[in-house]
Amino acid sequence: MCPPPSTTEVTTSTSPSTENNDHLVTSSDPNHPANLIPSLCAKFWHLGWVTGTGGGCSIRSDDLVYLAPSGVQKELMKPSDIYVLSLSSQPTDPEERKQRVYLRSPPQYKPSQCTPLFLAAFTKRNAGCCIHTHSHWAVLVTLILESTPSLNSKLFEINNIEQIKGFGKGHGKVGNLGYHDTLRIPVIENTAHEEDLTEFLEEAMDQYPDTYAVLVRRHGVYVWGDNVHKAKTMCESLDYLFQLAVEMKQLGLPWITDIEPTLPTRK
Amino acid sequence: MCPPPSTTEVTTSTSPSTENNDHLVTSSDPNHPANLIPSLCAKFWHLGWVTGTGGGCSIRSDDLVYLAPSGVQKELMKPSDIYVLSLSSQPTDPEERKQRVYLRSPPQYKPSQCTPLFLAAFTKRNAGCCIHTHSHWAVLVTLILESTPSLNSKLFEINNIEQIKGFGKGHGKVGNLGYHDTLRIPVIENTAHEEDLTEFLEEAMDQYPDTYAVLVRRHGVYVWGDNVHKAKTMCESLDYLFQLAVEMKQLGLPWITDIEPTLPTRK
Amino acid sequence: MCPPPSTTEVTTSTSPSTENNDHLVTSSDPNHPANLIPSLCAKFWHLGWVTGTGGGCSIRSDDLVYLAPSGVQKELMKPSDIYVLSLSSQPTDPEERKQRVYLRSPPQYKPSQCTPLFLAAFTKRNAGCCIHTHSHWAVLVTLILESTPSLNSKLFEINNIEQIKGFGKGHGKVGNLGYHDTLRIPVIENTAHEEDLTEFLEEAMDQYPDTYAVLVRRHGVYVWGDNVHKAKTMCESLDYLFQLAVEMKQLGLPWITDIEPTLPTRK
Amino acid sequence: MCPPPSTTEVTTSTSPSTENNDHLVTSSDPNHPANLIPSLCAKFWHLGWVTGTGGGCSIRSDDLVYLAPSGVQKELMKPSDIYVLSLSSQPTDPEERKQRVYLRSPPQYKPSQCTPLFLAAFTKRNAGCCIHTHSHWAVLVTLILESTPSLNSKLFEINNIEQIKGFGKGHGKVGNLGYHDTLRIPVIENTAHEEDLTEFLEEAMDQYPDTYAVLVRRHGVYVWGDNVHKAKTMCESLDYLFQLAVEMKQLGLPWITDIEPTLPTRK
Repeated sequence: MCPPPSTTEVTTSTSPSTENNDHLVTSSDPNHPANLIPSLCAKFWHLGWVTGTGGGCSIRSDDLVYLAPSGVQKELMKPSDIYVLSLSSQPTDPEERKQRVYLRSPPQYKPSQCTPLFLAAFTKRNAGCCIHTHSHWAVLVTLILESTPSLNSKLFEINNIEQIKGFGKGHGKVGNLGYHDTLRIPVIENTAHEEDLTEFLEEAMDQYPDTYAVLVRRHGVYVWGDNVHKAKTMCESLDYLFQLAVEMKQLGLPWITDIEPTLPTRK
Repeated sequence: MCPPPSTTEVTTSTSPSTENNDHLVTSSDPNHPANLIPSLCAKFWHLGWVTGTGGGCSIRSDDLVYLAPSGVQKELMKPSDIYVLSLSSQPTDPEERKQRVYLRSPPQYKPSQCTPLFLAAFTKRNAGCCIHTHSHWAVLVTLILESTPSLNSKLFEINNIEQIKGFGKGHGKVGNLGYHDTLRIPVIENTAHEEDLTEFLEEAMDQYPDTYAVLVRRHGVYVWGDNVHKAKTMCESLDYLFQLAVEMKQLGLPWITDIEPTLPTRK
Repeated sequence: MCPPPSTTEVTTSTSPSTENNDHLVTSSDPNHPANLIPSLCAKFWHLGWVTGTGGGCSIRSDDLVYLAPSGVQKELMKPSDIYVLSLSSQPTDPEERKQRVYLRSPPQYKPSQCTPLFLAAFTKRNAGCCIHTHSHWAVLVTLILESTPSLNSKLFEINNIEQIKGFGKGHGKVGNLGYHDTLRIPVIENTAHEEDLTEFLEEAMDQYPDTYAVLVRRHGVYVWGDNVHKAKTMCESLDYLFQLAVEMKQLGLPWITDIEPTLPTRK
Repeated sequence: MCPPPSTTEVTTSTSPSTENNDHLVTSSDPNHPANLIPSLCAKFWHLGWVTGTGGGCSIRSDDLVYLAPSGVQKELMKPSDIYVLSLSSQPTDPEERKQRVYLRSPPQYKPSQCTPLFLAAFTKRNAGCCIHTHSHWAVLVTLILESTPSLNSKLFEINNIEQIKGFGKGHGKVGNLGYHDTLRIPVIENTAHEEDLTEFLEEAMDQYPDTYAVLVRRHGVYVWGDNVHKAKTMCESLDYLFQLAVEMKQLGLPWITDIEPTLPTRK
């Protein structure tokens, strides 16, 4: 869930600059972030990823970050609901981070607690888009990991599935994972307040520098990419793999196997 | 199901006032209750919540209550199909309750047996919207509770799942449940006639004053909220949790766990 | 599947009368059978009931019967694809039945082998609409019945589920089944040629005069009703119950239970 | 996945002929291949067959082959994204095959590694359309086959299910499979590079001359047909059977049974 943050947060720009900066979310281009976030969120709602106002999506365009507000029905979101902030103007000190200033704020909403998590992907990975889902496949994967003694509860691992090729090798690396590679997604424990996940998400990013996603136990997943296309298609591929993994578990099939490569014979 | 009530009910206003009060269901505002009930019901039909004319939705706006008729295909409903009644003019005596008078009645339909159940949420909780689904996840949860000796068959309980934060703490209380809180939804037994559920629903509301939902064994769930937004998003979150609970059961995972909170280290 | 019938069938009216009777399938009324069959079939395709040209739907309006052709993609059907025949003009002798004459035939299609099965519902039950689905829930129910020694493999039975109230008590009877009533749907064995199912379907109708549906082993279900509304909503309710039954089986829950009625205390 | 092919491939026609041949993908006819591929792919995306840019679809019209590019979001594809090549002008030598020349190339994309697999269906079977899905039902079937000692891991077999009648008897043969016939779909092992699947796909086509589909272990399925209608409806029927097979496995039901035919008694 992305409820509003604790009361210490002040959205200082709400009153005067709101009117001035509505141009930041006004565009006739369907690929403008303020139009794309609502259309993506509606798509995600139909996929069951952002049920009951849970989950969300943020897009970065150069220094500008576009964010959905807290508690909005994701299939009904409008461009005028979007927050905009300047990434370079954000305080780096954790204590000051809560005093977030927005370039543009929607009149009737509150900012989302997911904000610092989205910003971590933008700051630490130079991502262009970050998606957060509550997909129950993601939640079930973390529950299976937690309750299966033979598995590392802090790491989802799967190999030898074609869809793994949908993932890049890692930030700054060229190309995608191969069919026989092992996809590894770290799992962090959920915290009572979503914003408190930030430090653990950042730790997981440091520990797994090549990952494009972090699972949150009993909560969902954060997925990012260099741009909207990559974040969205990796999020789809990951949800496909989570579903497959749950179904494999129900059929008693292991996620990791040792398969001899099949080599071409005629070249 | 919300079939028409027993034959003792008389819809006295059907003949003369129908024409006069069509203005109560005529509006160009998509958020007018007479427009919103059909669009919500169509959405619920696609979610599998109101299959085969089962289930429904009612909205209260001040003293006016808008209700879907009995036996209508939920994805085809029109504003002109909607009943309207005055909440304050309803008889309080259970015996008289069946002599319900409507301010506006659609010509070719009968009122729904769900009516007194929706009114209970409006009267006892001051709710602005009440949703009734036949979601098979809800039904399966009540069946699992009934057949699992280690569980209290009269109470669905789940904790340590992020989506729980989608629920308010209770009527008149500020804020939402936390991640570690236990969501408790009482279960009442189904009755042969839906209107006879009313007293048991009201009893459950008295026994669980903080609940926003009541499960009905082998039947479905009633969910309400202060307004349409809250009722709809809580209903979505609840269905998500029912689905997750059934899948957890299939994987042998418990609904209630004792998890040590993960605390932030850097503030 | 509804492939074209055996080669002995002659659609004698195809050539001359086709042009003359196109008015039978031309209407601006969305509820005209020639418009309704395509829109219903598109809806059924999205529900997974008529995958891969399987299944279908027929509507009777007085003496005229409207039928989808064989082998058409159900989500792409058009009014001009519809066959029309006169019910009273059909031969009653089984041998002659194959020499079916159509009032209106689409130029490029063949009639469906489902035709005599739809006609059985119209003739023997005076139905106004008959729906045939290949829903895999229906197929799974017949497979479970076939392989569970404690169950009667020729009869699907379920009770004490609210959705059962979506079914009428039977042709010519007033009112619907109650919550505690047992819904009984006979199962017939599949035949190599779909048209050969007709006599077994008719036998099942004779043996279960109150049923509105017949399951076909490893194939699907036929559901009918007095009109489109009743056939469609009963078909939805039945598919809901089939899905629930499969899920109950997976959870080890029985379909038939002995539940003490919960009686109201205050009236 | 259909990532771009290895770097040895040269799309020589990209620069000069692109502008000239845009007419090959420009048509107001919704059934023109350049319009049909995007609309089919959008439909497949909603069915979960082409998640995360995986899978695809190619159509042949006489000598012209229309292909989706690599890495495109399948629900967002446009006619201008389509590649066109001449089938008769393709090199037959495997080594030269990689130097593929296109009549028309979209400016910003790369050709798909699936190309030689689609061409195999066109060349060896004279198919008019070939569909490649990553349906997780297909993947699960190959996983079940791999891990069940009593089954032939290289062959999916199912009989006595009505939907089997949705398949033709084989290329050049008249009519469809019957209810009691056994549908057999060969399974090939996945290779690290999708283009390397080609020789194994062709081998499977030689070994099973009547098949219209080949499963790829832990990857998905290729399905083809004489035209778009047949490829699409066979792909739907196959996915239905894969889903049913997985559900049958979960319920402990066998895919192959020995059922006595039910014969008509009255003709």
